[in-house]
Amino acid sequence: MKASKFTFATLKETPSDADIVSSQLMVRAGLIRKLASGLYVWMPMGLRVLRHVERIVREEMNRINAQELLMPVTQPAELWQESGRWDDYGAELLRFKDRHQRDFVLGPTHEEVITDIARNELKSYKQLPVSYYQIQTKFRDEIRPRFGVMRAREFTMKDAYSFHIDKESLAETYQDMYDAYSRIFSRLGLNFRAVQADTGSIGGFASHEFHVLADSGEDDIAFSSESDFAANVELAEAICTATRPAPSQARTDVDTVNMPTCEEVAKHLGIALEQTVKTLIVKGAHSEENPDAPKLVALILRGDHTLNEIKAEKIADVATPLEMASEEAMKEAGLIKGYISADLSSYGIPVYADRAAAALADFVSGANIEHKHTTGMNWERDAALAGVVDIRNVVDGDPSPDGKGVINIKRGIEVGHVFQLGDKYSDALGCRVLGKEGKPVTLMMGCYGIGVSRIIAAAIEQNHDEQGIIWADTPDPADNIAPFYVAIVPMRSKDGSAEAKAEELYQTLKDKGVNVLLDDRDERPGVKFADLELIGIPHRIVVSERNLAEGKYEYVKRGIDGKQMLSLDEVLAKF
Amino acid sequence: MKASKFTFATLKETPSDADIVSSQLMVRAGLIRKLASGLYVWMPMGLRVLRHVERIVREEMNRINAQELLMPVTQPAELWQESGRWDDYGAELLRFKDRHQRDFVLGPTHEEVITDIARNELKSYKQLPVSYYQIQTKFRDEIRPRFGVMRAREFTMKDAYSFHIDKESLAETYQDMYDAYSRIFSRLGLNFRAVQADTGSIGGFASHEFHVLADSGEDDIAFSSESDFAANVELAEAICTATRPAPSQARTDVDTVNMPTCEEVAKHLGIALEQTVKTLIVKGAHSEENPDAPKLVALILRGDHTLNEIKAEKIADVATPLEMASEEAMKEAGLIKGYISADLSSYGIPVYADRAAAALADFVSGANIEHKHTTGMNWERDAALAGVVDIRNVVDGDPSPDGKGVINIKRGIEVGHVFQLGDKYSDALGCRVLGKEGKPVTLMMGCYGIGVSRIIAAAIEQNHDEQGIIWADTPDPADNIAPFYVAIVPMRSKDGSAEAKAEELYQTLKDKGVNVLLDDRDERPGVKFADLELIGIPHRIVVSERNLAEGKYEYVKRGIDGKQMLSLDEVLAKF
Repeated sequence: MKASKFTFATLKETPSDADIVSSQLMVRAGLIRKLASGLYVWMPMGLRVLRHVERIVREEMNRINAQELLMPVTQPAELWQESGRWDDYGAELLRFKDRHQRDFVLGPTHEEVITDIARNELKSYKQLPVSYYQIQTKFRDEIRPRFGVMRAREFTMKDAYSFHIDKESLAETYQDMYDAYSRIFSRLGLNFRAVQADTGSIGGFASHEFHVLADSGEDDIAFSSESDFAANVELAEAICTATRPAPSQARTDVDTVNMPTCEEVAKHLGIALEQTVKTLIVKGAHSEENPDAPKLVALILRGDHTLNEIKAEKIADVATPLEMASEEAMKEAGLIKGYISADLSSYGIPVYADRAAAALADFVSGANIEHKHTTGMNWERDAALAGVVDIRNVVDGDPSPDGKGVINIKRGIEVGHVFQLGDKYSDALGCRVLGKEGKPVTLMMGCYGIGVSRIIAAAIEQNHDEQGIIWADTPDPADNIAPFYVAIVPMRSKDGSAEAKAEELYQTLKDKGVNVLLDDRDERPGVKFADLELIGIPHRIVVSERNLAEGKYEYVKRGIDGKQMLSLDEVLAKF
Repeated sequence: MKASKFTFATLKETPSDADIVSSQLMVRAGLIRKLASGLYVWMPMGLRVLRHVERIVREEMNRINAQELLMPVTQPAELWQESGRWDDYGAELLRFKDRHQRDFVLGPTHEEVITDIARNELKSYKQLPVSYYQIQTKFRDEIRPRFGVMRAREFTMKDAYSFHIDKESLAETYQDMYDAYSRIFSRLGLNFRAVQADTGSIGGFASHEFHVLADSGEDDIAFSSESDFAANVELAEAICTATRPAPSQARTDVDTVNMPTCEEVAKHLGIALEQTVKTLIVKGAHSEENPDAPKLVALILRGDHTLNEIKAEKIADVATPLEMASEEAMKEAGLIKGYISADLSSYGIPVYADRAAAALADFVSGANIEHKHTTGMNWERDAALAGVVDIRNVVDGDPSPDGKGVINIKRGIEVGHVFQLGDKYSDALGCRVLGKEGKPVTLMMGCYGIGVSRIIAAAIEQNHDEQGIIWADTPDPADNIAPFYVAIVPMRSKDGSAEAKAEELYQTLKDKGVNVLLDDRDERPGVKFADLELIGIPHRIVVSERNLAEGKYEYVKRGIDGKQMLSLDEVLAKF
């Protein structure tokens, strides 16, 4: 491509409404333009990047025999009513009426549509397993679109769906998808982690998120310093290797006036925060259907730990979704907020201690008396336990759950998600085939998403500098997602020799299939260099009359300081 | 691709709701599935066809330096309000509100968005001309979606837009686009015509439609038997080469009881229909602003001709849009419906005669007396003329307007449209750049659309038979849009030799880059052959033990009767 025939839409100024570095750089480099809140135009420069990513995703989907199709963006409401999500899905689901007042949605995802197709097309177990995917425009009506294309309303997704006669087949395809995703992000040259994720409200069997690591990420990921273990902090198991020492102190109430927090108490008593516990009162699972369950439940954590709500919800006595008890309910139960004791035996409230809290001896808890705490507390001797549970978030330095190394926590940007859905949709929509025994079998389903446009923002979050974008090196240079892989810049020459040689080199590289740009714009070299660095072109070759006299070309690798003077053969050898 | 790893979704039965042969065949061949009225899923088989078409369109757009970008499907209402189309565009424009009650549309076209981009990005005439295009999902809320993907609500379009400093530059790019479109449809192997089209309400300068010729087309196209001339019948000029003979008959009223039509009168009098005229009364351009214009206007056509409303609207005395006068208004003016005379001099109604009607002598018109006509009518002697005009539709056999040959009328399916928009949108949205003289200049615009998904239906309308789809041969076999170009069918063999040879041939062709399918499905040969014919795979090679013994392969070309027995070399030479 010749730059003179191509739209460069670089900006010197950082746009005031771009709230994250990738968004700023994408707009400044002319990859995208904002049309309205959460709606972006992919400019020619940006679309080249998007297409590179699409190609790699497509190749890896095809490699595992997933079949590409294309479903409509608009979907009839009936299917969403059948699945129940017409009511369950929040305001992110954009609903509209057509001219005949029929209800439709703009698809944020396509489980309903693909299940409708599957129930019509699939008749026999012999047709299974089968995987379909599409690369397509999705819409999610975000309440506050932000972070550029990272959390836009309209975006490009690769969504795949698989259908199976049983769980074993689902697990196999799940693994294929997991491997394909790993290959995709590896080919893109991204520093990423596949992490165990919560199967959440969809209620499937297994789920992994793929995160690109970047300080600006929205998610915390726990991973081992010495193994492949990685999990969303929400899900990572907190191991406790300590065993509880025997009691050595007597139980004693002490004054702690206006000190409702563990930090204040530890400081006041001159002890480590780790020697204190906090007692959280949450709603119990008590209901008309479940009259034996408690109305309130105490959750006890070490003073330095924080509650993991997803884990806590797994305790049968605890109400789902997790909800803190109201001040009124606590008062009614005789509890003194900020000073609640770990000893609740006389209150009829079951006490669940986190593993780390349960391993303490001679600890400090509230006294359940205003302005008083108790020192020298010991489990069993002073406080009864209904259970020892894992209910805290892991922290840096915790032992890795797989026993290898310790946990490090880093921030990540979710760019992919694989999910064993089970039969949630196939059951709701009656997606069945004849099984081996000749009887109808409800299919097992998996779903697998990649945020194609999001990947680009995540890649930039991970790799950039003051000058602009740095596109990661990829194992195969042909996989580099930079809009152009090489830029050739001719310096104006009196005899036209630099321009001619630049054109010659351009043709040579083009004929070799290299994604090359000839920057023949009528601009000063400084402007061109700044643009090329902002856009992040990985390789830059400057052709000047002076250097040509010595048979040399000036070569610069983006992100690496310094110029190299190379012969033509050395230049060509690089590509 | 191996058929065992690919979804064949062929149907024996014609779907009851498919109202046109292309739609029936696309569903039966498993290219598409209907999700809801006007919404279709492109199944894996169909998506391959769609991608082939997209690739050819993209290559030809890139060839003329049009730059690909991608605009959102959802568009903010503000832009449509700015252009005036928020009010002007009919109910096909799907409007919706987001969760914040802001107005949006689902884009049926992108003039507003691209003009918004252009007014922000373009600053100087030096950046011009520039052309942008996208291949993207469009939405049009058809009141009655029909003809499968031909008139769907959601469909794939290539839409391009060009920006220019003046009309000359616009005309140049228009010609480039025209040529690119011609190359696209030629490469696709389609029988098509570029026809002059009406610039209609958008009010641009020039416009051509590209039509694929097919008996089932919705449009009538007039083209010359001996030249390149082609025009939409709405627009084709009706030439009259005859000169009016001198009067030879006396004006005579005759009885024509209950004969209000020319056909009845001609039959009754035993004369040719061509010797009669019909007088149509339409509303005149009279209004408060135009008090001198007539309230009613008479349009006179030869009995065998039909009125062309678009042409008639160009008469200044005629109201726009054209409207027939009400019976009341005619009564009030003293006119007798069905028996109106060509002589209206005493009624104050101007008479405009079509060129062919004006060339008649001794003709028959109504007598303006109930149940009476007048024979021996002659212009000037018996009836005054306000003007001689071209207001009829051309018919087969009319002289071609360019003087070469005669007009043939065929039906066509519009698959492309190029349009010189002028400054309609750039003016409304204030899209200006600094011109050569340093003053702001409002840009000239062109817009250019291709119905990518529609092309496929049109191609099938043009080429099919009882067995199914026939994909047209293309000048370059690599451009063939069939989902697969060659199918290899192994016949079950005792020693596995046929299967092995088929696999070998498959690999050989695949390595040569041929788009080949190995039909290794566990089905009877008859089922496979029927499927392959229905889908329209152009080349079929059957590998059987018996033929292999003689070193032969059975070869069949889709759409051509008869089998050929070929050696391996002869087979390979075909691809």
